[in-house]
Amino acid sequence: MAKKTPAGWTRKHLLGLEDLEAGEIRHLLDAAEKFLPYAKGARPARALAGKPPVPPGPLANRTVLNLFCEDSTRTRTSFTLAAERLGARVVEFQAATSSLKKNESLLDTARNIEAMGLDAIVIRHSDRGAPHAVAEAVQCSVLNAGDDAHEHPTQALLDFLAIRHKLGRLEGLTVAIVGDIRHSRVARSNLYGLAKMGSRVIFVGPPPFLEGLGDIAAPVETSTDLDAILPDCDAVMMLRVQFERHERNVPPGGVALDLEDYKRAYQLTAKRLARAKRGAIVLHPGPINRGLEITDQVADGPQSAILHQVTCGVAVRMAALSLCIGALDRERKIARPHPAQGLIQSDGAPLTPPLSHKGRGRQKRGLSREGRGRGKSSAGA
Amino acid sequence: MAKKTPAGWTRKHLLGLEDLEAGEIRHLLDAAEKFLPYAKGARPARALAGKPPVPPGPLANRTVLNLFCEDSTRTRTSFTLAAERLGARVVEFQAATSSLKKNESLLDTARNIEAMGLDAIVIRHSDRGAPHAVAEAVQCSVLNAGDDAHEHPTQALLDFLAIRHKLGRLEGLTVAIVGDIRHSRVARSNLYGLAKMGSRVIFVGPPPFLEGLGDIAAPVETSTDLDAILPDCDAVMMLRVQFERHERNVPPGGVALDLEDYKRAYQLTAKRLARAKRGAIVLHPGPINRGLEITDQVADGPQSAILHQVTCGVAVRMAALSLCIGALDRERKIARPHPAQGLIQSDGAPLTPPLSHKGRGRQKRGLSREGRGRGKSSAGA
Amino acid sequence: MAKKTPAGWTRKHLLGLEDLEAGEIRHLLDAAEKFLPYAKGARPARALAGKPPVPPGPLANRTVLNLFCEDSTRTRTSFTLAAERLGARVVEFQAATSSLKKNESLLDTARNIEAMGLDAIVIRHSDRGAPHAVAEAVQCSVLNAGDDAHEHPTQALLDFLAIRHKLGRLEGLTVAIVGDIRHSRVARSNLYGLAKMGSRVIFVGPPPFLEGLGDIAAPVETSTDLDAILPDCDAVMMLRVQFERHERNVPPGGVALDLEDYKRAYQLTAKRLARAKRGAIVLHPGPINRGLEITDQVADGPQSAILHQVTCGVAVRMAALSLCIGALDRERKIARPHPAQGLIQSDGAPLTPPLSHKGRGRQKRGLSREGRGRGKSSAGA
Repeated sequence: MAKKTPAGWTRKHLLGLEDLEAGEIRHLLDAAEKFLPYAKGARPARALAGKPPVPPGPLANRTVLNLFCEDSTRTRTSFTLAAERLGARVVEFQAATSSLKKNESLLDTARNIEAMGLDAIVIRHSDRGAPHAVAEAVQCSVLNAGDDAHEHPTQALLDFLAIRHKLGRLEGLTVAIVGDIRHSRVARSNLYGLAKMGSRVIFVGPPPFLEGLGDIAAPVETSTDLDAILPDCDAVMMLRVQFERHERNVPPGGVALDLEDYKRAYQLTAKRLARAKRGAIVLHPGPINRGLEITDQVADGPQSAILHQVTCGVAVRMAALSLCIGALDRERKIARPHPAQGLIQSDGAPLTPPLSHKGRGRQKRGLSREGRGRGKSSAGA
Repeated sequence: MAKKTPAGWTRKHLLGLEDLEAGEIRHLLDAAEKFLPYAKGARPARALAGKPPVPPGPLANRTVLNLFCEDSTRTRTSFTLAAERLGARVVEFQAATSSLKKNESLLDTARNIEAMGLDAIVIRHSDRGAPHAVAEAVQCSVLNAGDDAHEHPTQALLDFLAIRHKLGRLEGLTVAIVGDIRHSRVARSNLYGLAKMGSRVIFVGPPPFLEGLGDIAAPVETSTDLDAILPDCDAVMMLRVQFERHERNVPPGGVALDLEDYKRAYQLTAKRLARAKRGAIVLHPGPINRGLEITDQVADGPQSAILHQVTCGVAVRMAALSLCIGALDRERKIARPHPAQGLIQSDGAPLTPPLSHKGRGRQKRGLSREGRGRGKSSAGA
Repeated sequence: MAKKTPAGWTRKHLLGLEDLEAGEIRHLLDAAEKFLPYAKGARPARALAGKPPVPPGPLANRTVLNLFCEDSTRTRTSFTLAAERLGARVVEFQAATSSLKKNESLLDTARNIEAMGLDAIVIRHSDRGAPHAVAEAVQCSVLNAGDDAHEHPTQALLDFLAIRHKLGRLEGLTVAIVGDIRHSRVARSNLYGLAKMGSRVIFVGPPPFLEGLGDIAAPVETSTDLDAILPDCDAVMMLRVQFERHERNVPPGGVALDLEDYKRAYQLTAKRLARAKRGAIVLHPGPINRGLEITDQVADGPQSAILHQVTCGVAVRMAALSLCIGALDRERKIARPHPAQGLIQSDGAPLTPPLSHKGRGRQKRGLSREGRGRGKSSAGA
């Protein structure tokens, strides 16, 4: 199942796992593994010893835009810390106080801020495909931080890193993903990626949660009986029941979920977890509904990898930003001048000319590319 | 028309273009021109080659406050990137969660945060003259990022830089500014500056949009007929119809705007643009109402300088911050100690005394100056 | 009254002044005194002269989380600038757009973000004891930035620094704290600390404002007659009447406050201040209600130390962060690898392995500790 491709990374965007090859996933996980100490906030031993100052990271002077059009604490913070620990600066797009209020389209916003000098856009959006549309519209790297119920590639990659780190491999494992699969971009991205890495994925939940999977471009194995499949499982990923989405998405004639029934059949208790393979690990993308899909005892128990997932998240995002911007640099083929060379002195002394810059052709291409069929902002209102 | 004054910059504030001399504008534009590569996110060639780390910028260890009391994504982000690319840190004042809610006055807020050690305040406010009041109240530099329908100097300066960069000069050009002039601080700042640089400015729009210009301290040329004046134009700046302001400002007996009539007479279409001078450029301060004041074809076409304006904005703000803080430094005449010298070690080792600091007199002057007639916060409520 | 303990600092948390020894307070104030120049934004003299770049501060590569679950401009900004001027990066937790909305508990949020690699959490919360609960739940340092009407230790410490800086000592002084003592964490923290430093504290206000002090674990001296006690006072600290809390806290049968009566008896006017000791100073934690608890003349007069308090606040927070993280480092005893050593190149070149890291045992301890009785998030709703 796992395709072997030569290692290496040539993509400037990370939009989903559906398109990635197994070799690319492996390359990214190998890179992320090496970032793990820094994801925990590691700092120089010599700084502790009062030694000379640390140099900036490999993404020094780079600018990353966090374009989050849906609520997120964890993912946004994780991307921010990943970027900043590599030396980049992060610009936050504040949706509540943004010009999106003034009817500016997403693509115009992205292009506009890109014209201020971006290296990457990290986007979360409630519309499926929004990151892909932005990637078409801009020159810089685009990383999907979750689009509707479609993909959330860095979340799945951090799951892979956590599993591989705890169990030593991904090949030949069985992973149950339990809960509201219908609305889960995490489940989709996990399925795409794990299938390529040679794992078996089983989607588990009551029938209403296993509907609407027709969009998935891969074979899907489902079960409504968690207890029956647990003995095969090396890892159990519990999903959060997403109340706020259900309200939007209850189909006409849809049945309401009975929480007590749900808990009886699917809540991960210590007793239930004991049915899984010896050494099986527990995952959860968070935030946890304690006492609903998972008990405190399991969430905080020795088989839980939930907080380790969070640490892996920073490492995976450090790897993703590094690799994508590295690919962007090769595309740009532009050696650019040093921001601190030839700049004006803060005491107002005369400017000396900076090194020459050949970026104008790029700007023009960007402008001419913009005319292609794109949604217009509503003019009236 | 353009006054020739010796180059140089002695102002610590940038509050509007009404007060600037042509020589000062030219000095700032020349500085901004040199920042253009960095405005595009340029970074050191040697960083790409794995060479030693980059030094911080000329505003290292400086602190800039973004005091935005009105919504803004673009301008705030542009100022933030300008400051950070010079090495400064930026503090965001979050109006929604600030003590302004607790009846604290704007001036008290500004003075309070200045006491934490500011070098500059970038302010946007819905009250005309608010930046000037803050500049009176504090010691540090103040840059106006837009006050009501009064001035928006860096927006006008970025327009000048974009025009000069595309057309090679400002002298002798004709610039039409089309739309709701009545509510436009951009139009006012452009008029003040362009007149000094030797350009002819024509305000264009339906009669209701050309009312209420009595506050402008310069000769105003207006036209209601865009098609008639286009053949003279080297640059056409389309303004956004600001729906949210109209609701507040419709005069008693004011006529409602008919959008279809407006589009027929003033929308910048490719056909209409063809009437302008050969090589004329199109400007727009954004955000664009696509399909209202401008068509996609023009906004994204080869004569559009709209995204280039955005890049020029970062360069102009880098220049404005550098020049104003440079003037502030000369006023302060204080050589201040190094934040990293004599500091406590993070391992808790004893502190060594830092260099001496003579800033206390300034603090006292600030306090005694504060008593002068100033708005009080409402005490009740 | 002032206990003499050997200088030094061994605490990784700063949760309140109730527990601190006089020697610890003195140690922190001495450290803060040395940070004062940097609190004013001091920068290197050699940077002005175009000399080589400045090294990062003693907290370079450290990460501080601002976890503010109540509105605050001043305190949050002060902590942010303190951390950044020491070289740390600050992550803002945005309560409005956070997963607390999704029923995630405070402790899960803190632990989750800690797993991204934190050195310190600065927390403000509307629940008494919330910072203490977080300190129990995480490994990193925790600094209390105000919990309900309980403690606000850095605010009190900045008051002490301002008094000591202006009057030369704390021992033997009399400090009146005037206003709504009942709801004031500032008053409580001041009382705990000043008593230990050998000052006499008098709480002053109308009877309803002096109720509900039974929680204070120290002798309390109160007065309803400001004019009578002023002749004893070296410092007068005016508190803000907190309208928004009164609405929540008016007891059954509570009497409404008559503002005019309050002003007649307690407003600090120039005439009233003249009754205090010669050279007495005026303090206010802000934001000021001008014309209510204090007049403009006093707030902006020569005896006011109000803006100096703000500057002292940054210095105190620099000291608190340095000392607490220093103690944390000694607890961790981990020499950690350099984030910029052995990292991936931004051009995609192969990774070299970083130094080994032994942090996993800590992670496991954290996980196993989590099971202890902790509030569950509500599952329904």
